[in-house]
Amino acid sequence: MNKKYEEIISTEIAKINSFISRCPQLKTVEGSPWETVLEAEKYALSAGGKRIRPLLAVEFYKLFSEADSVPDLVYEAAVTLEMTHTFSLIHDDMPEMDNDDLRRGKPATHVKYGTATGLLAGDGLAILPYEILADMALDGRISHLTAIKLIKLLSANAGNRGMIAGQMLDLWSEEKKDGINEEFLRKMSGLKTGCLLSAACLFGAVLAYASEEQCRSAKIYAKNVGLAFQIVDDVLDVTSSPEALGKPTGSDSERGKPTFYDILGPDGALKEAKSLSQAAADELDKYPNSGLLRQLALSLAVRNK
Amino acid sequence: MNKKYEEIISTEIAKINSFISRCPQLKTVEGSPWETVLEAEKYALSAGGKRIRPLLAVEFYKLFSEADSVPDLVYEAAVTLEMTHTFSLIHDDMPEMDNDDLRRGKPATHVKYGTATGLLAGDGLAILPYEILADMALDGRISHLTAIKLIKLLSANAGNRGMIAGQMLDLWSEEKKDGINEEFLRKMSGLKTGCLLSAACLFGAVLAYASEEQCRSAKIYAKNVGLAFQIVDDVLDVTSSPEALGKPTGSDSERGKPTFYDILGPDGALKEAKSLSQAAADELDKYPNSGLLRQLALSLAVRNK
Repeated sequence: MNKKYEEIISTEIAKINSFISRCPQLKTVEGSPWETVLEAEKYALSAGGKRIRPLLAVEFYKLFSEADSVPDLVYEAAVTLEMTHTFSLIHDDMPEMDNDDLRRGKPATHVKYGTATGLLAGDGLAILPYEILADMALDGRISHLTAIKLIKLLSANAGNRGMIAGQMLDLWSEEKKDGINEEFLRKMSGLKTGCLLSAACLFGAVLAYASEEQCRSAKIYAKNVGLAFQIVDDVLDVTSSPEALGKPTGSDSERGKPTFYDILGPDGALKEAKSLSQAAADELDKYPNSGLLRQLALSLAVRNK
Repeated sequence: MNKKYEEIISTEIAKINSFISRCPQLKTVEGSPWETVLEAEKYALSAGGKRIRPLLAVEFYKLFSEADSVPDLVYEAAVTLEMTHTFSLIHDDMPEMDNDDLRRGKPATHVKYGTATGLLAGDGLAILPYEILADMALDGRISHLTAIKLIKLLSANAGNRGMIAGQMLDLWSEEKKDGINEEFLRKMSGLKTGCLLSAACLFGAVLAYASEEQCRSAKIYAKNVGLAFQIVDDVLDVTSSPEALGKPTGSDSERGKPTFYDILGPDGALKEAKSLSQAAADELDKYPNSGLLRQLALSLAVRNK
């Protein structure tokens, strides 16, 4: 990726991290034992994620608002996407789901704080976004309608017919190994990761008062980027090393779960990822100043970690 | 309780149950394996709860709106309180929390559907209320501001500084048996059950466009009723039989958790419960047509199941 874009992305991620760490709703002040749940949530949030969801919200805001600067409220709203993503990671790592003790090289939240507190920390981060978005509307930082639209986007894409449906399909695919085909993997990935990425791009669009056509472009970009990302993930799970990736490799084949790598083959998978990334980039061609988002999409297909 | 009020309450509970079972967001249509999470959520919701939270919302709506009939939107909004309560019960019953295999005489959700689906069903019911309330605003059934107020009430009272904080204190009290005093129990109970009861009473008040003074009364009522309810629960856990109660007794003392029964003694506990119920009832004295809610509060102190 072009150096200028890389610098912008680092600056934005630093800003997103600072909004996450300053989140007033997660401040501990009483020293009461219940506040351990806040510590656990902050621990999970600060575990060094790529912040791709809030970054997409910020960049789509820039793309469609054509404003010179990004107001704080965009970062404050974008942080709720990272909270939702983090809640799902906390619960995914728990013994009844993937039973992973490590997350990005550090003890998983339920390992560090115990499974009961881990469970509650996930619950807390699942609910907090709606309080933050309601607060922003009550404080007048965003309009009531904007808040309602963001709440709908987040809850619908994270909930039963979005991310949670994808997690259910993932559980199911571990049991029924046969009969998993490319169509199933596309559906599962679209729900499990695509939905929240779509919410992220649309958060930026809604905050920028984007047109319907612009929102459609954001959705097409998100759908293609999400699928490309998953396909490359599946390839790296086989071809990369734990050192390069920062997490154990081979986990899918250990669980006997068929992936895009198995079904499309190494070359076919990478070719498909490239074509999806290109489709995402092409969708934004018509918008001036879409260079960063286009390069971001294309960089996914050639990443090695 | 007076027979007329008993009949009204049965009618309202039947109506609430019918709104729960008809909830469009929980309909299964595809026959896809991900829809098992919807089945698990409906199973948990239909396990025969007392529906006290939606009932309080409906009755406070009647009290403050002085309308002759209750519009459907009040029931639709009230159902989200039962969903939030049910999500917390599903997660509470799981192995890492209370590890209860039975809930109201039936297998707990995680026992019936497996722990992974149980976890996700709890997550789904934690998030769904916000989608329902946002949908109601987008459809024009409630104003945007009303939706924002309800979303704030629900998320703040269910979240980190409400119900979840109470669950954290409950976990902590199991570890640190000493140093648990009446003040701690009041705080824990206020957070764990009082907050959501308060949200329930205020749901009705907000939907009825109640005045600030009326909202204050709703909060005082909820606080006193919630505490009375918890104290009687603690007494029944010792003095009642599993047959009468429909659930195992003696569970608190098995876990070695001090309760109001231990700290206030049997007579002291019942005296305190009566006085709290009376305070709740007295708070509503100034409102015409508050007979049902006043009797409901007083009946708590003399219930035997």
